[in-house]
Amino acid sequence: MKPVLAADIGGTNIRLALVSQNGHIIDEKRTTAELSRHSLQSQQSAETHIIDTLAGIIQPFIQQHGATALGMGFPGFFHSQSGRLASSPNLPMLKDFALAQRLADKLGIHVAVENDALCAAIGEHRYGAGKGQSNLLHITLGTGIGSGLILNGLPYSGEHGMAMEFGHLCIEHHDGRLCGCGNHGCVEAYASASAIVRRFTEQCGEQCDAKTVFELALQGNPCAEKIMQEAGQYLGMAIAEAVKLLDVTTITVSGGLSGAWSILHPALKAELDINLISPQKCKVEVLRSTLYDNAGLLGAAAIANPET
Amino acid sequence: MKPVLAADIGGTNIRLALVSQNGHIIDEKRTTAELSRHSLQSQQSAETHIIDTLAGIIQPFIQQHGATALGMGFPGFFHSQSGRLASSPNLPMLKDFALAQRLADKLGIHVAVENDALCAAIGEHRYGAGKGQSNLLHITLGTGIGSGLILNGLPYSGEHGMAMEFGHLCIEHHDGRLCGCGNHGCVEAYASASAIVRRFTEQCGEQCDAKTVFELALQGNPCAEKIMQEAGQYLGMAIAEAVKLLDVTTITVSGGLSGAWSILHPALKAELDINLISPQKCKVEVLRSTLYDNAGLLGAAAIANPET
Repeated sequence: MKPVLAADIGGTNIRLALVSQNGHIIDEKRTTAELSRHSLQSQQSAETHIIDTLAGIIQPFIQQHGATALGMGFPGFFHSQSGRLASSPNLPMLKDFALAQRLADKLGIHVAVENDALCAAIGEHRYGAGKGQSNLLHITLGTGIGSGLILNGLPYSGEHGMAMEFGHLCIEHHDGRLCGCGNHGCVEAYASASAIVRRFTEQCGEQCDAKTVFELALQGNPCAEKIMQEAGQYLGMAIAEAVKLLDVTTITVSGGLSGAWSILHPALKAELDINLISPQKCKVEVLRSTLYDNAGLLGAAAIANPET
Repeated sequence: MKPVLAADIGGTNIRLALVSQNGHIIDEKRTTAELSRHSLQSQQSAETHIIDTLAGIIQPFIQQHGATALGMGFPGFFHSQSGRLASSPNLPMLKDFALAQRLADKLGIHVAVENDALCAAIGEHRYGAGKGQSNLLHITLGTGIGSGLILNGLPYSGEHGMAMEFGHLCIEHHDGRLCGCGNHGCVEAYASASAIVRRFTEQCGEQCDAKTVFELALQGNPCAEKIMQEAGQYLGMAIAEAVKLLDVTTITVSGGLSGAWSILHPALKAELDINLISPQKCKVEVLRSTLYDNAGLLGAAAIANPET
C-alpha cells in the first residue's frame, strides 16, 4: 500500500504530510493561507477561491511525492461520507459544496474529506491512545475545543454532520462567559487555549499565549496553576455530561493545552467522577493523546486509506 | 405472526399486555408487586424473589392467552442484547443477573428484556411519533425522567447499558436541587413528576399529585403554570445538550407530564433554540408521543418480536 497524502486545514494554518500505512509521517509541510476572504461576494467565487488556494498548496506536494490519494480534515459540517460540505461557521459563504469532488477534479487524485475534529478522533482511534477501543470520545484542546466520536468502530457525525459539538456544552447556566458561538457558558469559553489566555489576562494582569500560561502553571505560578486547574474542572464537568449520554469508557485528549496534563488530568478526573451517576463513577479513563498535535493529520490519512 | 406478551415493570407497578404485530393492545392487566424487598440478604434470594414474583404474575396471563414470547422493559442497566441485568439502582442486590434466561426457564417461553426507558424509545420508534425516523431520542416524563436513543434504526445502550442517562444531565451547576441519584442540579430534579409535586408544595403551599398540578396549570392557575413552564425550560436546556452531542432531529416525549403539552412544549422549544449552536437552531422537532403511556409496553412487545 502506497503512502497517502494528508491535509489538516485550519482557519489560517495548513499542514500537509505524506503518511505511511502504519501512521508514520514521512514528510511534512506547514504553511498558511487565508481561506475566508471577506471580499468574496458569491458562493461561486468563494468555492473557486477555496479550490484554487488548496490546489495551489497541495499540487506541488503531490508532484514531489506522487501520492494517489488525499485525506483532508476541514473545519465544517459534512454530509456523512460524501465529502459534501453542508456548511462551515468559518466560511459562511459555502453551503452544500462538493468540496471533495471539486478538489479531486482539480488535483486528479482521490480525495476524502471529513470534519477536522472527527479526523482527530479517527486518527487517535486508528493510531493513538484509543487504538483497539470499540468506542472513543476524542477531544482536541486548541484555539477552540473540537471533539469527535467513534461508535462501534465507526465515526459518528450525526444527521447533519453536527454531532459532538462538545465545546459548546453548557457548564455555566448563570452569567456564563460569552463563547465565540454567541451563546454563554460553553466549556470552550473556559477551557480552550483562547479562554486560558483571556482568563490569565483578567485574573493575573499579564498578557501571554496559552503555552506560556501552562508552562508557568507547570513551574508553580499559583495564578496560572489555578486557571489550568479550573480548565480541567470545567472539562471534567463537560465530559461527565457526554458520558451520561453516550456511556463511553475511553476518552482521549490532544491539542496544545494537553501539555499541562499533570495539572489538567487530576482536576478533570476528580470533577468527572463527582458529576457522573454512581454506577459510572471511576469507570471512565481519560488518556492523553499519544499523537499530540498529529491526531488530525493521521486521521485525515486514515480516511484516504479506509481499507487498511 | 402470533401476538406477543409485553411487560412493563416499574418499582411497584406492573403492566402486562397481549400485543398484536401492528402494535395494538388486545388485552391488558395492571397489578402491583414489591420487587425490592429490603429484607433479602443475598443475591441468590433476591434473584429467586424476582423470578418467582414475576412468574407468579405472568404465568396466568400466558395460560390465558397462549403466547410464546415475552418482551419486558425493566428498570436497570442491561448488557446489550443478552438480557443480562448488569445492575439496577432500585434493586442493588442484583448484579450480572441472567434475568431473561432465568425467566425463560421458569416460564417455558422465549423472553427478551431491555431497559424500560429504552423500550419506550423502541416503542415510539416502531409504532408512534418517531415511526420512519432513522434516529430518535425519546424522553419519558414519569416519577423520574427516562430516556432512550435509536441510532440508524437500532437501539443504542452504550458500553455498559448506561447510555442516555438524560434525566441526570446537569442544568444547574450552582446550588442545584438534590436529585435522587445523589448529585445536584439534574434535570430530573426540576422536570419530573416528583419534582413538579415538590416544587408546587414549596412555591404554592399546597400538596397535590403531579396530574393535579398540570391540570391546575392548564386551567390557568398562575403558580402551577409557572412551575410547568419552568419544567419545560429546564427540559429544553437538557435537550439542547443532547442535540449538541448527538445531532438528532426528532425527539419524542411521553409520560404523564406530557399531558400539559400546550404549556410544556412552547417553553421547551424556546429554550431549546436559545441553547443550540446557530446551525442547529430551529432544525429540531420535539413531538408529543402518540402512544401516551403505552410506549414502553409496545417497545417491550417489539423486542420480543424483532423480525417484524
